[in-house]
Amino acid sequence: MNAAVAAIKPRKPSGLALVPTMGALHEGHAALMRTARESNAAVVVSIYVNPTQFGPNEDFAKYPRPLEADCRICEREGVAVVFAPTDNEMYPGSQPRLRGRGQLAASTWVEELQVAKRLEGERRPSHFHGVCTVVAKLFNIIQPDRAYFGQKDYQQLKVIQRMVRDLCYPIEIVSVPTVREADGLAMSSRNRYLSPDERAQALVLWKALNCARDLFAKGERDPQRLQTAMAQVIATAPAARLDYAEIADGETLEQRQKVKRGDVALIAAFVGATRLIDNLIL
Amino acid sequence: MNAAVAAIKPRKPSGLALVPTMGALHEGHAALMRTARESNAAVVVSIYVNPTQFGPNEDFAKYPRPLEADCRICEREGVAVVFAPTDNEMYPGSQPRLRGRGQLAASTWVEELQVAKRLEGERRPSHFHGVCTVVAKLFNIIQPDRAYFGQKDYQQLKVIQRMVRDLCYPIEIVSVPTVREADGLAMSSRNRYLSPDERAQALVLWKALNCARDLFAKGERDPQRLQTAMAQVIATAPAARLDYAEIADGETLEQRQKVKRGDVALIAAFVGATRLIDNLIL
Repeated sequence: MNAAVAAIKPRKPSGLALVPTMGALHEGHAALMRTARESNAAVVVSIYVNPTQFGPNEDFAKYPRPLEADCRICEREGVAVVFAPTDNEMYPGSQPRLRGRGQLAASTWVEELQVAKRLEGERRPSHFHGVCTVVAKLFNIIQPDRAYFGQKDYQQLKVIQRMVRDLCYPIEIVSVPTVREADGLAMSSRNRYLSPDERAQALVLWKALNCARDLFAKGERDPQRLQTAMAQVIATAPAARLDYAEIADGETLEQRQKVKRGDVALIAAFVGATRLIDNLIL
Repeated sequence: MNAAVAAIKPRKPSGLALVPTMGALHEGHAALMRTARESNAAVVVSIYVNPTQFGPNEDFAKYPRPLEADCRICEREGVAVVFAPTDNEMYPGSQPRLRGRGQLAASTWVEELQVAKRLEGERRPSHFHGVCTVVAKLFNIIQPDRAYFGQKDYQQLKVIQRMVRDLCYPIEIVSVPTVREADGLAMSSRNRYLSPDERAQALVLWKALNCARDLFAKGERDPQRLQTAMAQVIATAPAARLDYAEIADGETLEQRQKVKRGDVALIAAFVGATRLIDNLIL
């Protein structure tokens, strides 16, 4: 083929994509699949509610598992393979749900100790151990060229990027922007836990992030003032209880003395009994 | 090709083999390479003295690094590729030699918590974290179909087998029997630390293991008595100091109440300043 023909013929995407999910798929997941399809010959979606990334008092048992509806979404999005393993396939010879982290029969763990340290890692102590371990397993099983993660779980994205670099995985981690409802609420499988009133009040997370962005745009560079402003917005919703509102380095997730472009504002708050997270890059 | 022809034509081996080493290659490594060549289209030997598997008072600095001689051995054994990475290739952005385990800039670790718990894992607390982490990296970089480990480092072999199963690596771990000097001493890169007198006395490890085997053959099933007998053999060498002599389950390395065929006798002892290990399956 000569250069002129090569130039006008659209390049056929090559490679295998993995979109790791816990199911309960929504438009945010669909955006991951669509982005993956654009740059890959085939897309694998994994659906697995990973027990080891849930804390003992978290929502593992009630986490929604609408597998058939999920498969229809995958089919609609042109996904080649849905990989929905059993616990025994992911944790051979073990019962990860029933035991603490140290006593699992399947006893190999992957842990990232730096990016995972603060924020979600501090509030959910074994969460990222579970995430890194299950993602490493999925990488080893599927062996994708690229894997797609939503920016909604910002710290998870950065932990996985660090893990991939540290462990020399030949996999490109692609970040896909958060998909939001019409009013701005970040799409999340956990939104379906919210009552109509809680759903309305949940918008304070997005409002608080926008408040931080506006202050940053007006020149505010003191992280403490931005964090206080975000907390004040959260306090306007009676059903909401702030877990954290912080400004962090966009790569390391470390605390900031002075806020810079590319830093990220991160929020976690309970709305009723439901814990929601969101973030915005400044 | 019809069935008759297929039956008489020797099957060409396919697949890629990895032989992970720390260099200072000896006949034990050569046996790994030869075994790997028999069943694979190509063999990669990695040579990397992995800093994170050495404890602070161990022999990392003085560990022999005869890279040119090692390459000649690899060439002689028909190895396709020698992979001798730098620290920065294996631990990007980090200085693993200079810092403790928790403070590494490259902050992702792979740990196996069950098979690695006792014996070497107890005496060398971060050893297997370092081993698992570096082997996972090598697997991700080389992506072999099979990887070859010597039975001389028995617990390491079993830790890696468990790690591979737990993390769903599509890699076959092949165990190769220990190669011994004419008198029975297990080949080890650390043997070159021994003075001629220590070299002669080092044979007590093999003698102690044979003593356990003989007693087992005569019907002894009490692990304590076998362990005491091994310790008594070690005590006959004035330069030797026992670290441990134990009978363990051949897969889990757990302690035994009653010894069974397939259990393993494991010994670690200092001979002069040099720590040696050896083992024998009963």
